Amino acid sequence: MNLMFPHPDQEPVLVLDDERSWKLLTHTRHARVAFQGDDRLEIFPVNILTEQPVVYFRTAPGSKLTAAEVGLPVVLEADGMLPDQGWSVVARGLARELTDEEDIRRVRRLGLTPWVPTFKDHVVAVEVTEISGRHFAFGPHPER
Amino acid sequence: MNLMFPHPDQEPVLVLDDERSWKLLTHTRHARVAFQGDDRLEIFPVNILTEQPVVYFRTAPGSKLTAAEVGLPVVLEADGMLPDQGWSVVARGLARELTDEEDIRRVRRLGLTPWVPTFKDHVVAVEVTEISGRHFAFGPHPER
Repeated sequence: MNLMFPHPDQEPVLVLDDERSWKLLTHTRHARVAFQGDDRLEIFPVNILTEQPVVYFRTAPGSKLTAAEVGLPVVLEADGMLPDQGWSVVARGLARELTDEEDIRRVRRLGLTPWVPTFKDHVVAVEVTEISGRHFAFGPHPER
Repeated sequence: MNLMFPHPDQEPVLVLDDERSWKLLTHTRHARVAFQGDDRLEIFPVNILTEQPVVYFRTAPGSKLTAAEVGLPVVLEADGMLPDQGWSVVARGLARELTDEEDIRRVRRLGLTPWVPTFKDHVVAVEVTEISGRHFAFGPHPER
């Protein structure tokens, strides 16, 4: 029995409501952002900071930023694995670059740091319009 | 100094060659698969098994499988985080469902298990045609 994520009728997959999905995302610093690039799908790991309903990440100039500049739809995915359970949250929304200096300073003060010590000065905000989450109870696979 | 992943000139990001990227992917069981669905981008966590140049994952019927059935291009992403370093590998290729029973049995014997104890009988193979990897040395961010 999982106390935090009770699965009714021993179902191995529990669909999470928005509140729980946001809670998991808010407590996560590491995610991936995916979007349709010019000629193919792009996916990158990012450090995130969540202020419901917005998720922020920092980036250097490049394809990620290009997506944000034109307001492309992006998908954020975060997950967590333990030996006996796991979860995954997917959040969708439009990405835009933060341009107001006060906004940028505020988000930095909240602790949004990039992975590596380079000059990644651009902050991207994703206004999430849809979130979904799943919790998985691991177990043996019933081979047919 | 990172002995396994030496970064020349203290550069925080090290681009990995194909051999190292395959090695990281091969030692990883947990990844995400992303692809363009009917009307939007889809991304799911998956357990993977890698036999260069193929990556296998299991799935129940649904959008993931639909992608595999029609041979859609998919992107697999895996990453690993430590307090002082991290890595990310992205592999691209076409997905197809394994239909030969002997192939399916072989992959299962190799240890490809799904996350949850449901009847996930479909095995998807991604023939990887492009792989890329990055290693990150974390550190303080030089604020301008």
